[in-house]
Amino acid sequence: MSKIIRVNVGDQTCKIEPVPEKYELLGGRSLTSQIICDEVPPQCNPLESENKVVFAPGFVTGTSAPSSGRMSVGGKSPLTGGIKEANAGTPVSQKLGRMQIKAIIVEGEPKNPGDSWLLHLTADAAEFVPANDLKGKGTYETVAQVRSRFGDKVSYFGIGPSGEFKMASAGIFFSDMEGRPSRFAARGGLGAVLGSKGIKAVVVDDAGAEGVVIKNPELFKVGRKKVADALTSHDLTKPGGVLNSFGTSAVINVMNEVGALPTRNFSSGRFEGAAKISGDAIVEAINARGGGKQGHGCHPGCLIQCSNIYPREDGSEHVAKIEFESAGLLGANLEIDNLDHVAELVRLCNDLGLDTIEVGATIGVIMEAGYISFGDGPAAIKLLEEVRAGSPMGRIVGSGTAVAGQIYGVKRVPVVKKQALAAYDPRVIKGIGLTYGSSPMGADHTAGYTMASEVFGVGGKTDSFDTDGKVELSRAMQVTTGFLDSTGYCLFIAFAISDIASGFEGVMETVNAVLGTEWTTEDSARLGATVLKIEKEFNRRAGLNKEADRLPSFFAQEPLPPHNTVFDMDDKDIDAVLEG
Amino acid sequence: MSKIIRVNVGDQTCKIEPVPEKYELLGGRSLTSQIICDEVPPQCNPLESENKVVFAPGFVTGTSAPSSGRMSVGGKSPLTGGIKEANAGTPVSQKLGRMQIKAIIVEGEPKNPGDSWLLHLTADAAEFVPANDLKGKGTYETVAQVRSRFGDKVSYFGIGPSGEFKMASAGIFFSDMEGRPSRFAARGGLGAVLGSKGIKAVVVDDAGAEGVVIKNPELFKVGRKKVADALTSHDLTKPGGVLNSFGTSAVINVMNEVGALPTRNFSSGRFEGAAKISGDAIVEAINARGGGKQGHGCHPGCLIQCSNIYPREDGSEHVAKIEFESAGLLGANLEIDNLDHVAELVRLCNDLGLDTIEVGATIGVIMEAGYISFGDGPAAIKLLEEVRAGSPMGRIVGSGTAVAGQIYGVKRVPVVKKQALAAYDPRVIKGIGLTYGSSPMGADHTAGYTMASEVFGVGGKTDSFDTDGKVELSRAMQVTTGFLDSTGYCLFIAFAISDIASGFEGVMETVNAVLGTEWTTEDSARLGATVLKIEKEFNRRAGLNKEADRLPSFFAQEPLPPHNTVFDMDDKDIDAVLEG
Repeated sequence: MSKIIRVNVGDQTCKIEPVPEKYELLGGRSLTSQIICDEVPPQCNPLESENKVVFAPGFVTGTSAPSSGRMSVGGKSPLTGGIKEANAGTPVSQKLGRMQIKAIIVEGEPKNPGDSWLLHLTADAAEFVPANDLKGKGTYETVAQVRSRFGDKVSYFGIGPSGEFKMASAGIFFSDMEGRPSRFAARGGLGAVLGSKGIKAVVVDDAGAEGVVIKNPELFKVGRKKVADALTSHDLTKPGGVLNSFGTSAVINVMNEVGALPTRNFSSGRFEGAAKISGDAIVEAINARGGGKQGHGCHPGCLIQCSNIYPREDGSEHVAKIEFESAGLLGANLEIDNLDHVAELVRLCNDLGLDTIEVGATIGVIMEAGYISFGDGPAAIKLLEEVRAGSPMGRIVGSGTAVAGQIYGVKRVPVVKKQALAAYDPRVIKGIGLTYGSSPMGADHTAGYTMASEVFGVGGKTDSFDTDGKVELSRAMQVTTGFLDSTGYCLFIAFAISDIASGFEGVMETVNAVLGTEWTTEDSARLGATVLKIEKEFNRRAGLNKEADRLPSFFAQEPLPPHNTVFDMDDKDIDAVLEG
Repeated sequence: MSKIIRVNVGDQTCKIEPVPEKYELLGGRSLTSQIICDEVPPQCNPLESENKVVFAPGFVTGTSAPSSGRMSVGGKSPLTGGIKEANAGTPVSQKLGRMQIKAIIVEGEPKNPGDSWLLHLTADAAEFVPANDLKGKGTYETVAQVRSRFGDKVSYFGIGPSGEFKMASAGIFFSDMEGRPSRFAARGGLGAVLGSKGIKAVVVDDAGAEGVVIKNPELFKVGRKKVADALTSHDLTKPGGVLNSFGTSAVINVMNEVGALPTRNFSSGRFEGAAKISGDAIVEAINARGGGKQGHGCHPGCLIQCSNIYPREDGSEHVAKIEFESAGLLGANLEIDNLDHVAELVRLCNDLGLDTIEVGATIGVIMEAGYISFGDGPAAIKLLEEVRAGSPMGRIVGSGTAVAGQIYGVKRVPVVKKQALAAYDPRVIKGIGLTYGSSPMGADHTAGYTMASEVFGVGGKTDSFDTDGKVELSRAMQVTTGFLDSTGYCLFIAFAISDIASGFEGVMETVNAVLGTEWTTEDSARLGATVLKIEKEFNRRAGLNKEADRLPSFFAQEPLPPHNTVFDMDDKDIDAVLEG
């Protein structure tokens, strides 16, 4: 039977609760956000006992629906001060789905805040296991010890030293198919919230799990095939397609060409060294060095397989994975054109448990202040290493871009709601500026990925410089995402199902099959809009108002080379996105 | 003729402008706040060109009205993100008054942000003087060099290294009667704004000044006498009275007795070592060591003379001055009971150009995080020294309590609108909690000093634990302060004029005499209320809403020893203060 696991870190109890009726038709983000809205006071200190961390797989996660292993994590963000949902693709989510765990709620305040604990979750129990031996350990060593203790069949998630330090850039790692701590619900500092609860890692053992109950198996089969067909026929998502062959970093060259690739702390949109850190360059290194891999999935059943394993010069594994956002923020934005340096920065972020986007933007601001030089990869690596010991500079690096900007009195601080922008400059891609501003998540490209239309022409091409129609575009993307983030499907299926109508039908059919509903596309939009509405309301009560939706003024004032355009959309446009 | 000096640091022009009619009946805070509201976009980055720093003496400043040498400084605060007025008592203000300078507006963006400049202000001109030789210099060395260049008769104000680093805790120093950089418009980071303009110091030479035009000299004489009589007869303000004999630090023992003295990062209201850092202890050291002085004024014509000069063990001057707030935050709040250590911390704050309240609260949070220990004076001194070089830890110390709390993931962070609370705990003194929350300035005891009634019984005694009537009390205090901060009179005259009706008459008469008005007490309340209203409106447009008016939740949740009470006033009470 479907259930909610409620973990109280104060008295160390794990209660198994039935799913309240109001949560039955919620999943993933719609469930984490609803539980946070229901149970967390919007004005609480995110690191205090009143905050909670909620984990929820999507509607179809754990079934054979392709590319549907997303895991949503929710809480009040110590970075933005608002509500947060971050998600990752991982076998953990599939296991929870099969264990019929609708959500895990971690709450309370540890009695001895200095102690570290593992949570061991099996089909019929959850227990606290002392883990002070893991205190301060990097995620790689943590997972090695977890595997030596619990075996290779379990999956797990947890935090690195940054989460234990309660740093605002700390994410939560999830294991990939081979057990690497490489899939991150990275954004918004939820790792710090888990750290404040004293939980170092959660081990998920699904032995004996009963599997997801599918209320209409026939319908599911039909829908599943439609989704698979769409994914395997669309140019971006098909086997041998762009994402599979070059990964997300294929976008480096595209954004550089477009002139929207954040370079030198968002002071240019074009990076001379872009080609050296692009998807092509990654594939070239993999082919030349051996040992790595292009085309790797987050979890079993992913048909897109866009991820990679990047090798060292000697062919040994360096890091899984170098994504576009990481290469953009830790590469171009820092003017670092050495892919091995970028790989090491990503590996360190993974080991320390940090969000690569936030850290890249933070180091950009620190470079702007002159503490180290743009382009100096080894200096950036050394700087990031400081996080491990929690030195003053390490604390600054881990506390987010806004804090670094405040600390160094820097003017160009690329954040909205204190969360760093991703690797798309809104002075060139107007729609994404609206998403950055209006999303309840703070600056977050995944919240409403307008590049799909503005750059890739998916679902109809729009001109990225054009302001017309972008309010509607950002709104549509955000609403769709609110729904997709609830299904457990990877956001990347949006490329295929936007262009191929039967793909979207398939998504609705698989969801209806699992839930026993008869939702139409209108119902999916209603769910997406409702998620956004409750998230906005939480933020309003937390003190984030319209002014918190504004982009930093330099985007409107400093023209971005090479196109020398500014972000010229009105505040009213931002307001209109989610009010309309 | 009355004038406004407009200094543009971009093209290095100083324009002398006539006073617009709408500013004629404004002065001090009412003028700085109005100019900021008129000229600064509320959403600008406080360190960017759009922000301005405005300096304005009060209505009667520069006349012989007693204790009326306050200088208001306004701008958008890099600490709170809202409007800020901070003021200090200084001969600078009296000179500007006599030079008929209604306000100085510093605006624009320096062409070469690395360069430092002095501004040399005389009766008929203002010019930029290169000052790169003063870059990074402490305030003591800065004023020594200024005096060697411009002589002993000038007065001056400016910033220390913290302002040059654009740190959010940087204040603006003003010279005292003997030229010490000891009077600070400390709060809210206005020193960082001046630093962002490239102005290291301003030299004020009033040779040839025409003096304040008093429209009704007879009335002025009558009013002046009434104010003087009130000040010299009230127990708190008279010669040989409490403030004169023991200084503001007399309040250490009082607050300790009351149980509201912030101790160990606001975790207790009583400090075992309080007596050792009290006003009595200061006087005792002065008497025993020689060389110091109790009873020192901010400027000529002060009848209260509450300040002090604290000597080293050998009788040489250590620091002017140790005030209650400094001893409270840098002493009790850090559990430092060695007065010489407290003196050195204050001296360092003065030299670095920092707000002692903000720094004391910041170090309290850093101690709470375990970086150094509570009670360890030498470690605190070493920590503060780091500000000079701008090391990562120095940056943290200078960036304010909220940032330090974020950096170290500390839960108990005593701020409102990111500004640290002064040395009165609102769990014991309920009215001041309402002022902390509702004041447009952030947590600021001077904005509405309810202790006058709740502790000292001035204007009628109220019970500090009682919540009844405190909304009205805080409102009345804030409105009165909005007016007094516009007159140039020191806030401490409020003790005398609240108890002695003729004293308040005298204030109105001196103001009316200078301005040529016939204002009644109702008019003074109207002015005070208007100031608050425009400041609130600026904040609203800057994004500070009702939620920004809330006290941190620990005040409502953690009972404060020894009385074990919490701050139990409703959010609605806070809202009602300035809405009513």
